[in-house]
Amino acid sequence: MFSDRFDQLVQALRILPSVGPKSAQRMALHMIMKNREGAIGLAQALTEATDHIHECTICHSLTEDDVCHICSSHERDDELLCVVESPADVMAIEQSGSFRGKYHVLGGHLSPLDGIGPEEIGIPYLIQRLSQGKVKEVILATNATVEGQATAHYLVEASKHLPLHITRIAQGVPQGGELEYVDSHTLSQAVHNRMRMK
Amino acid sequence: MFSDRFDQLVQALRILPSVGPKSAQRMALHMIMKNREGAIGLAQALTEATDHIHECTICHSLTEDDVCHICSSHERDDELLCVVESPADVMAIEQSGSFRGKYHVLGGHLSPLDGIGPEEIGIPYLIQRLSQGKVKEVILATNATVEGQATAHYLVEASKHLPLHITRIAQGVPQGGELEYVDSHTLSQAVHNRMRMK
Repeated sequence: MFSDRFDQLVQALRILPSVGPKSAQRMALHMIMKNREGAIGLAQALTEATDHIHECTICHSLTEDDVCHICSSHERDDELLCVVESPADVMAIEQSGSFRGKYHVLGGHLSPLDGIGPEEIGIPYLIQRLSQGKVKEVILATNATVEGQATAHYLVEASKHLPLHITRIAQGVPQGGELEYVDSHTLSQAVHNRMRMK
Repeated sequence: MFSDRFDQLVQALRILPSVGPKSAQRMALHMIMKNREGAIGLAQALTEATDHIHECTICHSLTEDDVCHICSSHERDDELLCVVESPADVMAIEQSGSFRGKYHVLGGHLSPLDGIGPEEIGIPYLIQRLSQGKVKEVILATNATVEGQATAHYLVEASKHLPLHITRIAQGVPQGGELEYVDSHTLSQAVHNRMRMK
C-alpha cells in the first residue's frame, strides 16, 4: 500500500500463526509508526534465534547447546522419561511444574496416511535409548487425539520386551470442567477411568 | 524456557499489538520448529522496512521516497484534501476506493491533557498548505471519537479565513447495522443528520 517494503513486511508477518491480512497490516503499521526500536529488536531476536537454536542431541527438544539443560541436569530423575510429541509439550508440562524427570520429543505422531511411520518420528532411537536400562518408567504424554493415542499404543507394543513401567497421562474431565459442557467421549472416558475414593 | 535466545525472541514478539505471553510463545515455537525460512524472511523485511520507510514530506503519510505516490500522482484531484489522524486511516480510505483526492496526515489528534496541542499535530503546517490556494474542499476524516471531533472543530475554526469548503465524513448507522444493536449516541446522530429522500 504505502511502498513495496511495507507490503513485503505485511506479507512476511503472515507466517505467524493466526495472523491474517488485517492483523499483519495492523502489526506492520504499529511497528513502523510507534515502535521502530522494537521492530529492530525483533529482527535481531529472530536472526539470533534461527542461527543458534537447534534440537538437543539427546531428547530432541530445543537448545542452543549440544545437550539441553534438562538432559544435562543432575537434579532431574533419570529413571523417569516423559515422551511427548513436540517441544511445545515439554514447555506445557514444565510450566505445570508436575514433572521432575527427563523428556523425549518425538517430533510428531504416527500418521500412516501422511507417510509418517515409526522411523520418521525416531521410534527406533527412542527404543535404543530405553534399552540402555537407566529408565524405569516411561510416561506417554502424546496428545489425547486419535493419532496421539495410536502413537502411545504403538510405543507400548514396541517396548514390550523391555523391563519398564509404562504409563499414560490421565484422561478425564479437565479442572473446572462442568459436566454439562464436557463432550460425551471425554465423559465416557472419565466414567471408565473412575478412581476409588474410599 | 529452552534457551536465552528463545526467551528473548518471545519477549521481542510481545511488541506486536494484541500478542500476549502465550501467543508470543506459540509464534516463537512455530517459527523455530516449522518455518525458519519465514523467520529469516521476517527479520529481513523488518530491517528493510525500518531502514527505508519514513514520512512523506508533503502529506506525512508513509513512503520510501521523499514524496509518496499519492502526493506525486497526477491522476488525483489536487483540489480535494482529506485530513486524517494516521497513515492507517489513509490505508482504510484507500481500500474503500471512495476517494480520489490527496491526503494530509496529522499524526494524532488534539489532546490537551496529554500536552498535544495544535503545534504537536502540525496544524500550522496544514493551514499553510491550505493557504497556497490549490485546495478547494477539505474533508475532515478524523475519527468519530471525542478527540477526533474536537480536532475537526478546531480545524474548522483555524481555517475560517480561507476560501474553502470544509466537510466532515458522515456519521450514522453503519452498513448492515441493525438499529436494535446500534448504540443510542450513534442513533441520535443518525436521526439528527437524516437525509431527505423525496
